[in-house]
Amino acid sequence: MDKKITSFSSNEGKPIRCKAAICKKAGEALVIEEIQVDPPQAYEVRVKILCTSLCHTDVTYWKMDSGPRARFPRILGHEAVGMVESMGENVDGFKQGDIVLPVFHPHCEECEVCKSSKTKSNWCAKFADDFLSNTRRYGMASRFKDSSGQDIHHLIFVSSFSEYTVIDIAHLVKISHDIPVDKASLLSCGVSTGIGAAWKVADVEAGSTVAIFGLGAVGLAVAEGARLRGAARIIGVDLNPDKFEQGKIFGFTDFVNPTLCGEKKISEVIKEMTGGGVDYSFECVGLASLMNEAFMSTRKGSGKTVVLGMEKHGAPISLGSFDLIAGRDICGCLFGGLKSKLDIPILVDHYLKKELNLDSFITHELKFDEINKAFDLLEKGKSLRCTIWMDK
Amino acid sequence: MDKKITSFSSNEGKPIRCKAAICKKAGEALVIEEIQVDPPQAYEVRVKILCTSLCHTDVTYWKMDSGPRARFPRILGHEAVGMVESMGENVDGFKQGDIVLPVFHPHCEECEVCKSSKTKSNWCAKFADDFLSNTRRYGMASRFKDSSGQDIHHLIFVSSFSEYTVIDIAHLVKISHDIPVDKASLLSCGVSTGIGAAWKVADVEAGSTVAIFGLGAVGLAVAEGARLRGAARIIGVDLNPDKFEQGKIFGFTDFVNPTLCGEKKISEVIKEMTGGGVDYSFECVGLASLMNEAFMSTRKGSGKTVVLGMEKHGAPISLGSFDLIAGRDICGCLFGGLKSKLDIPILVDHYLKKELNLDSFITHELKFDEINKAFDLLEKGKSLRCTIWMDK
Repeated sequence: MDKKITSFSSNEGKPIRCKAAICKKAGEALVIEEIQVDPPQAYEVRVKILCTSLCHTDVTYWKMDSGPRARFPRILGHEAVGMVESMGENVDGFKQGDIVLPVFHPHCEECEVCKSSKTKSNWCAKFADDFLSNTRRYGMASRFKDSSGQDIHHLIFVSSFSEYTVIDIAHLVKISHDIPVDKASLLSCGVSTGIGAAWKVADVEAGSTVAIFGLGAVGLAVAEGARLRGAARIIGVDLNPDKFEQGKIFGFTDFVNPTLCGEKKISEVIKEMTGGGVDYSFECVGLASLMNEAFMSTRKGSGKTVVLGMEKHGAPISLGSFDLIAGRDICGCLFGGLKSKLDIPILVDHYLKKELNLDSFITHELKFDEINKAFDLLEKGKSLRCTIWMDK
Repeated sequence: MDKKITSFSSNEGKPIRCKAAICKKAGEALVIEEIQVDPPQAYEVRVKILCTSLCHTDVTYWKMDSGPRARFPRILGHEAVGMVESMGENVDGFKQGDIVLPVFHPHCEECEVCKSSKTKSNWCAKFADDFLSNTRRYGMASRFKDSSGQDIHHLIFVSSFSEYTVIDIAHLVKISHDIPVDKASLLSCGVSTGIGAAWKVADVEAGSTVAIFGLGAVGLAVAEGARLRGAARIIGVDLNPDKFEQGKIFGFTDFVNPTLCGEKKISEVIKEMTGGGVDYSFECVGLASLMNEAFMSTRKGSGKTVVLGMEKHGAPISLGSFDLIAGRDICGCLFGGLKSKLDIPILVDHYLKKELNLDSFITHELKFDEINKAFDLLEKGKSLRCTIWMDK
């Protein structure tokens, strides 16, 4: 470790040449090439990525072939863990060798929302509305250049499919050295999103009933959060029955396979199972029709639905007005409503106290040059999280 | 008072003949005729109505000319105060001469939801899903007969436009004799609905910003609730500028007239006024398009919208999925989320302590035989609440 830190110093303020997996065109296999990573500017940190994992959002951006968010060439990847290599000006609270998690959702610690530990909102008033820039404070300026000196686009302020990346301090959380880095990586996006939705957004209480739509890593993390809160019943909804065995580890008690519901809607089946509906439902797929089914699965009077991510096609959600005034509630969140710098260290603590199960999320490990296999595993529903080791 | 109670006793167990305002056909003027009011059955109380007021829901049912809820002849009216005349079997907690408020939304005190003082839900598990019956436990059985002996339909378990009515104990709240009956009547529906939405459903806190769509009695009651909680800014939205002067009494600080917004949406104007949106918005009109505007008027990260009543045309609500995951929340409620037997006495106390302003809601008073004027005043936006005195 010390040796690496020493070698870091020699590059401070200079560009680094390293390997990155570049997405040159929507849906095409990533190509590992040597790139140049510029030094960090003010409020930025250059991070040596230790390991990264593949999240569905990467796949969404990988396939995206139109609109302002579809940009190539691009370095994907946003769920990772790394070590601070060097820092630009005005960077407090980080030093070389720190273990850090990048987080796509900002926590600036300067605006009214971020400064307040009381408000439940994690919608940073300074930065959260910009989803298009490459670098947080410098707009379209990129810190990556290809062999011909052309800019390469960043991905949601992280771009972890590179040996080195540059990240704004609003997107970086310092964590304990005690947690294994591959487990820590999971807290950078998907697992934190799920647990945050259960704990901070829904505030699931002991004895309650829960339905979770979509048993990817995020859905399983919601279950893990609900399990730790003492939920009495956790119902999983997924088209892939293989997910049900995995789900049991995370506390699922029941499963609904929509293909086996006959003419009944999923919500009708869940209402029958629970005598009127669940207390909480979570939509972790990103389809408007499922958001409606999740909403309709909750009980009248007090049912609450949490939508955890973007609708894949940007479609609006339609809700029956009478179903709403029957006392139902629906809300959405990004990053599970968590304020990264406050809440991720708490999740790390839960892991270190052996309360939070992170280990079971990692189903595969790959070397960096095998990264395209991770896409295949995730798309086929074979992996939950695949750790991609940068140095192996 | 004592004399009346004595006279009540003589009718116990027998039908009473009295005057009622009958709606014979959708939208036609009510006709005051003598009817027969049968004695109460088990779990029912026969109530002498002291005064009643007209609520928009009465107008909605009055105009309703199709569908299972459109039924004639019918006795409308559901916001009222009365005195217990006689009781059927299995009626505990009421005695002759008690002052009682009828409430259209049930509180059975037997089901899990009603028994719990902890749960926030007021969706009585035993009764709340039936909106079609005449009498709560006896289905289409009516306690009213016209001069030819034909049944007259009830309205949402109250039917207060009659000198006497029969009400199930799940819909009846005993209140203090200390509160003037015309003020108490307001707590039977509209004012309680608004205050409940602000206090129990939204849980408005001091210093927050609020937008209220629709400045009828319910909208003004939301403002009164928000004012009592110390909201910093209360923005009223209404097409009728006359409402703005009335609104100031209830704590409104700003007004938006949609006809003066030019090409801007109401939500855009409110976002500009508040630097990004309000903390809480309330829809008190019953239009899906306004529910969406109310939703869009709230700030990202923590904005909460409360829909207080039925969409007039039964239309669904459409929400932008990205607007939802930006941390917004929308929910609906009936009767402001209040459990009538628990919460109405609390509101009566607030009135008796001179904290809650009920007096300003009463803009008109009429004799029972002038009841059709109340419809005219409400429809023309001239009245907030018109007290209709049964004995005058």
